[in-house]
Amino acid sequence: MSAPFFQMSLIVQKYGGTSVGNPERIRNVARRIVETQDQGHGVVAVVSAMSGVTDSLIKLAREVSPHPEEREMDVLLATGEQTTMALTAMAINAMGRKAVSLTGAQAGIVTDGVHTRAKIADLTPKQLKHHLDEGCICIVAGFQGETKDKRITTLGRGGSDLTAIAVAAAVKADLCQIYTDVDGVYTCDPRVVPTAKKIAVISFDEMLEMASSGSKVMQSRSVEFAKKFGVTFEVRSSFNNNPGTIVKEETKSMEAVVVRGVSIEKNQAKVTVRAVPDKPGVAARVFTAVADAGIIIDMIVQNVAHDGTTDISFTLNKDELPKVETTLGPVAKEIGAKAVEIQGDIGKISIIGVGMRSHSGVAAKMFEALSKAGINIVMISTSEIKTAVIVDEAKLTAGANVVHEAFGLGR
Amino acid sequence: MSAPFFQMSLIVQKYGGTSVGNPERIRNVARRIVETQDQGHGVVAVVSAMSGVTDSLIKLAREVSPHPEEREMDVLLATGEQTTMALTAMAINAMGRKAVSLTGAQAGIVTDGVHTRAKIADLTPKQLKHHLDEGCICIVAGFQGETKDKRITTLGRGGSDLTAIAVAAAVKADLCQIYTDVDGVYTCDPRVVPTAKKIAVISFDEMLEMASSGSKVMQSRSVEFAKKFGVTFEVRSSFNNNPGTIVKEETKSMEAVVVRGVSIEKNQAKVTVRAVPDKPGVAARVFTAVADAGIIIDMIVQNVAHDGTTDISFTLNKDELPKVETTLGPVAKEIGAKAVEIQGDIGKISIIGVGMRSHSGVAAKMFEALSKAGINIVMISTSEIKTAVIVDEAKLTAGANVVHEAFGLGR
Repeated sequence: MSAPFFQMSLIVQKYGGTSVGNPERIRNVARRIVETQDQGHGVVAVVSAMSGVTDSLIKLAREVSPHPEEREMDVLLATGEQTTMALTAMAINAMGRKAVSLTGAQAGIVTDGVHTRAKIADLTPKQLKHHLDEGCICIVAGFQGETKDKRITTLGRGGSDLTAIAVAAAVKADLCQIYTDVDGVYTCDPRVVPTAKKIAVISFDEMLEMASSGSKVMQSRSVEFAKKFGVTFEVRSSFNNNPGTIVKEETKSMEAVVVRGVSIEKNQAKVTVRAVPDKPGVAARVFTAVADAGIIIDMIVQNVAHDGTTDISFTLNKDELPKVETTLGPVAKEIGAKAVEIQGDIGKISIIGVGMRSHSGVAAKMFEALSKAGINIVMISTSEIKTAVIVDEAKLTAGANVVHEAFGLGR
Repeated sequence: MSAPFFQMSLIVQKYGGTSVGNPERIRNVARRIVETQDQGHGVVAVVSAMSGVTDSLIKLAREVSPHPEEREMDVLLATGEQTTMALTAMAINAMGRKAVSLTGAQAGIVTDGVHTRAKIADLTPKQLKHHLDEGCICIVAGFQGETKDKRITTLGRGGSDLTAIAVAAAVKADLCQIYTDVDGVYTCDPRVVPTAKKIAVISFDEMLEMASSGSKVMQSRSVEFAKKFGVTFEVRSSFNNNPGTIVKEETKSMEAVVVRGVSIEKNQAKVTVRAVPDKPGVAARVFTAVADAGIIIDMIVQNVAHDGTTDISFTLNKDELPKVETTLGPVAKEIGAKAVEIQGDIGKISIIGVGMRSHSGVAAKMFEALSKAGINIVMISTSEIKTAVIVDEAKLTAGANVVHEAFGLGR
């Protein structure tokens, strides 16, 4: 194949499980893809398994084995995306266009060998490019790849987003669109803060902080991958034609907005190890034990010591609590701490924005807003572009609303 | 991996759709495979899609496209066997054995590019041998392969049997077992002839004649493949432990049995082109037209001419009739034939046995048995190891029973 006479723009689209949830929706997706081609673009579409299919497959697996081998689980789950990709290609063919489907392996997605949560190691889109050069629309199975020694792997949660971004990087796409069942990224969860607005543009770092602070639109690792390879992408809905949220490299003008969004996280708990002797190695002892037990923690706070002891506090998801109690009891005794205290029913409110770097008084404004509303702050943690506070879970909604209002995000 | 210290025997097993029709049956199949390993054999098992799955997938395809592209149909259907292979491997792993699943492509099955009915062009079982050397049980997806340029293909009807026999040839298996929902090959269909007995051993050629004469246990092309590569196989049930029917190279002792079995075929029709001028090229003109129209015919009979004309008759499946009428009308006119007559409601009874080659009077004995029962013979056709007659469909059951009895097959 010779190179096309002029270089078309190339768009990678990703359609999630609800967007392809039944044959009618698959035909809608096909129509959207065809429209994109009609606008003069080359198109690669990455598709997930139809919603519900992955769960049915997992159920089948449990019926033949209490603990299915992960290698075989990947072989089984990979059929979900393979089904969608074939159906999507058929639906496009039925509209008179040429489409071909490719499995992760066929699309050149090479992963490491960690079954059920593999990492993409390499992507050589030879077949993809060949079919694009022929003028074909390419439908690629999301969520899956193949090891160098030809084992089928899956990429774990959010894997199809990762596939789309990796493919976009490999084919040097002009744009990557992540079609999902939400309209984009909002200044806060609209179910909590009714005045929340859709964000038009957000930087990779802000999106990462939003993701890690409770905004569930995308998994962090897909955003990290996009940041690493400089892939600009748009999060938008497959059920309407509204523009979504563009996620891209930070630009100077982005700093004009001090706070991009407010993120909230429910179901948190706080653990405090009381009256720990203030000497080197003690904190390390506590957090090594926590890490060894596989407990995922979030914020850590240690205050200055008085009377030769200090308190060490950290927060985590409530689901992690049972592991904490069995792990920290012996450690507390060993280091001579007074007690391990646990406080449930707390939540986290975070404000995020690259503008914080160049604006002062942002944290103070947040604290003031909460204080005026009579909301007590239990813990504070800050990073370069984020300020997070822990409050009573009962005050989470009120707190998110006053903070959102204080920074004018609803306007 | 170094070669094992002593050479184990190696068995290839094939399990059809009903044998793996649900999780419980898959666990049964897993148990059977494990028992085979317990007996000291290396095992490769070829599995079909769970019964019903292929039909569901075809239904899904029709919901997105009236005429699904064959390339994509293959991608879609291949997920059926991939699902079974993973579940079967999991079930075996759950029994404490090491099993790995392999798609057709992973098992090294290379096909031509004729989608939905590809032919196996090559089989390089590199991965299979590697896993067998490691002591693994290998579960291979039936019915599928991959072209040289990495497109997924399927092998069409009976494709999983073909996979099993091809794998058995490639790994030089000591035995190939085709597990199905019948007990083996019978001297006649037991629903028609209650005294029918299971055949212990049958030659490839006899099996081929049985298959092409209406015994639906296996597709001809799988038997042809086995014959070509000298793969001895056994047809047996996955629902009990009875020995099945061994299909193998002909041996001298097989000729001692004159008739191995009686095969019947319903739903046939006879077409006669009347008073065709008896000159060269006329028969060719008729059958070229028939072939060009894609009509599959069975027996052909042409009698000696009288009055310078002759009658040409052939039989076919009734389903082919509509095509015949539109095709032969113009041809009959062109060659100056008197008429095209069609007789429906006929059936075929065949007796099959390599012993016919060395025994005389076999056909006569068949005709006599039918005559005594008052059954009229409409047409006769013979081959080296088969004699077939056409009778009224209403007399098919009675005819099969008297012929079966005449050759002592029920004893």
